[in-house]
Amino acid sequence: MIYLDNAATTFPKPESVYLAMDDVNRNHAFNAGRGSYRVAQEASALIDETKARILKLVHAGTSSRVVFTPSITIALNEIIQGVDLRDGDNIYLTPYEHNAVARVCELVSEKKKVNIIQMPVIDGSFEIDIEKTKYLFTQEKPKLVCCTHVSNVTGYILPTKELFEISKQYDAVTVLDTAQSLGIIDINANDIKADYIAFAGHKSLYGPLGVGGFIAAPKLTKLHITLAGGTGSDSLNLKMPESVPGRYEYASTNIVAIAGLNAALKEVNVEKNYVIEKELTKKTVEVLTKIPNVIVYAPSIEKHIGVISFNVKGYIAEDIGFMLDQDYEIAVRTGYHCAPFIHRILKDEKYIGTVRIGLSKYNNEHDIATLANALRKMIGET
Amino acid sequence: MIYLDNAATTFPKPESVYLAMDDVNRNHAFNAGRGSYRVAQEASALIDETKARILKLVHAGTSSRVVFTPSITIALNEIIQGVDLRDGDNIYLTPYEHNAVARVCELVSEKKKVNIIQMPVIDGSFEIDIEKTKYLFTQEKPKLVCCTHVSNVTGYILPTKELFEISKQYDAVTVLDTAQSLGIIDINANDIKADYIAFAGHKSLYGPLGVGGFIAAPKLTKLHITLAGGTGSDSLNLKMPESVPGRYEYASTNIVAIAGLNAALKEVNVEKNYVIEKELTKKTVEVLTKIPNVIVYAPSIEKHIGVISFNVKGYIAEDIGFMLDQDYEIAVRTGYHCAPFIHRILKDEKYIGTVRIGLSKYNNEHDIATLANALRKMIGET
Repeated sequence: MIYLDNAATTFPKPESVYLAMDDVNRNHAFNAGRGSYRVAQEASALIDETKARILKLVHAGTSSRVVFTPSITIALNEIIQGVDLRDGDNIYLTPYEHNAVARVCELVSEKKKVNIIQMPVIDGSFEIDIEKTKYLFTQEKPKLVCCTHVSNVTGYILPTKELFEISKQYDAVTVLDTAQSLGIIDINANDIKADYIAFAGHKSLYGPLGVGGFIAAPKLTKLHITLAGGTGSDSLNLKMPESVPGRYEYASTNIVAIAGLNAALKEVNVEKNYVIEKELTKKTVEVLTKIPNVIVYAPSIEKHIGVISFNVKGYIAEDIGFMLDQDYEIAVRTGYHCAPFIHRILKDEKYIGTVRIGLSKYNNEHDIATLANALRKMIGET
Repeated sequence: MIYLDNAATTFPKPESVYLAMDDVNRNHAFNAGRGSYRVAQEASALIDETKARILKLVHAGTSSRVVFTPSITIALNEIIQGVDLRDGDNIYLTPYEHNAVARVCELVSEKKKVNIIQMPVIDGSFEIDIEKTKYLFTQEKPKLVCCTHVSNVTGYILPTKELFEISKQYDAVTVLDTAQSLGIIDINANDIKADYIAFAGHKSLYGPLGVGGFIAAPKLTKLHITLAGGTGSDSLNLKMPESVPGRYEYASTNIVAIAGLNAALKEVNVEKNYVIEKELTKKTVEVLTKIPNVIVYAPSIEKHIGVISFNVKGYIAEDIGFMLDQDYEIAVRTGYHCAPFIHRILKDEKYIGTVRIGLSKYNNEHDIATLANALRKMIGET
């Protein structure tokens, strides 16, 4: 099988991830920080070590806080639902947001009279229109601005830095979704003006399923509580703790997944991953655009990495995916990819979404050539 | 090491759990139900198989629904925060509830004007007073009734069936927390009148960290949404799906943890586990009560399983735990065990909680004899 659905979850993981998880599962899967005994303290130490690696990866100082959650979706729920929003506040979203952001904002809007405003794209392109957004901000002041770093549909690298720069002129809370970028694009927490950087363990970091989280910038106002539970401390207190990260970390920690993430983080080489994925993205776009009847939804290459969406005229996306799987053992993802807004701009509804290639550092040009040959055969071009 | 903190998380797990997780991690860790390709469909099939095992375990028909969440804490948040509560509604809790229930109810009470009422215990005992509770219900009608099945502090088996029987006379929503009981005590979903049966994968089921969930009785009113996110389907819709379980299952499924749970469920033998834990609980209480200055907080043996709390006069609980760990390599848990209410009844505050023994099917009488000898030495009795 050629696996090209790495934007959903990367596969395979480094061997060290599998080994670390099996080892911790068999020998060290204790309830961290909840026991007075040594092996429970060792679990706590592993969590701290993993958090330090996350901070180092984004060049953050030790006054930033890392919160582990079972998934980036839960992290984004805790952030977005936790922000102190009032009736009349404006939430700005890019049209590239995933439902882990978009549906959460919708949920917030059912409880509070907030306005959800979509940022515009430049006419005739798929890129965020920063100038128009600036103007919108003057008309409707932003309170919360959410931006995905890399689109999980097109691989477009969003102008996060510029966007958060202008958002901070209004003291807006800024949230960066790095599900498709952390470990591939260098992120500097000191530079990017993101209050919250949400991350997924199992995607571009090559860690396991079961752990995600967020990095909170120093001295942030506390979020309102979205989820409550036992914290292994101050048990007689019915309120969640005031201190971060404890405030957002309830229930037994998944130390097995964290061990996998820790091993994955040891292997992350952002510079190298960037070059591999950039080159392969470029190559994939080149190869696909040469095939007749193939439409590629690609941003310009300097703003593009890791994910490539396309369609084939005359076929719905799902049919292409089905044939690639059945006849060529090539696994791609088809449909709307949990991204509710962008399809209006891509105009892919008649194909019922797109065929998506999600690359990993383990893919190579041969995989892409095999895919291209399969597509040519399918449409009778060879 | 003698591990006696199985009420926090069971350790070890059956060998088949480790093998299944490593196999799925290495070979089948794909994003279930989100791809049109076969290996993603295989992941979906594994989820369905595991859910069927859960239903079978509680003798539920296929019209019940199993929802997987990353932990029982999140399951309980989704249930309790999701119930349609109005101002003035009464939530009844037993004094044995864990903070995964108690703190969630507190959170609900910060958003809505609900009353949280604690059920009484029989004077001079640690047992729920059903007669007084019946009377309380006539005075303050219950809307939501939460009951832990087995106390995570004392191992007390609560009178769940009677309690839900009287709750249903008022059409109350009934929630059973089986973190310490599923797999050890036979639960019959047809009989117990629980609308929601919440379960933890990593405790009495001997599955891994990273998966829990709940069983919803057939034809229940939908819960309000607590957490939103991508569901891999109907992506253009900003609302969570109406259908269950999809409505409560967002984000990438942790197929590795589910594979471990599936393997664990294959090995569950409720009748056998019950006998092992019952006998060992009885033995532990017998042995501990013979040691001078040891106070055991034990219900009568027919209402007791798996967990035993005690203290030693003259020592705070934490010191006993520390000495057992350092000098004898015996791992117990000390403190309040995330159970906020029961300590007022146990009157253990001067010990700052209790020393807790959490048994598993892998413990034996030798473990308990070693513990007893250690305690005798510590207090200068041998």
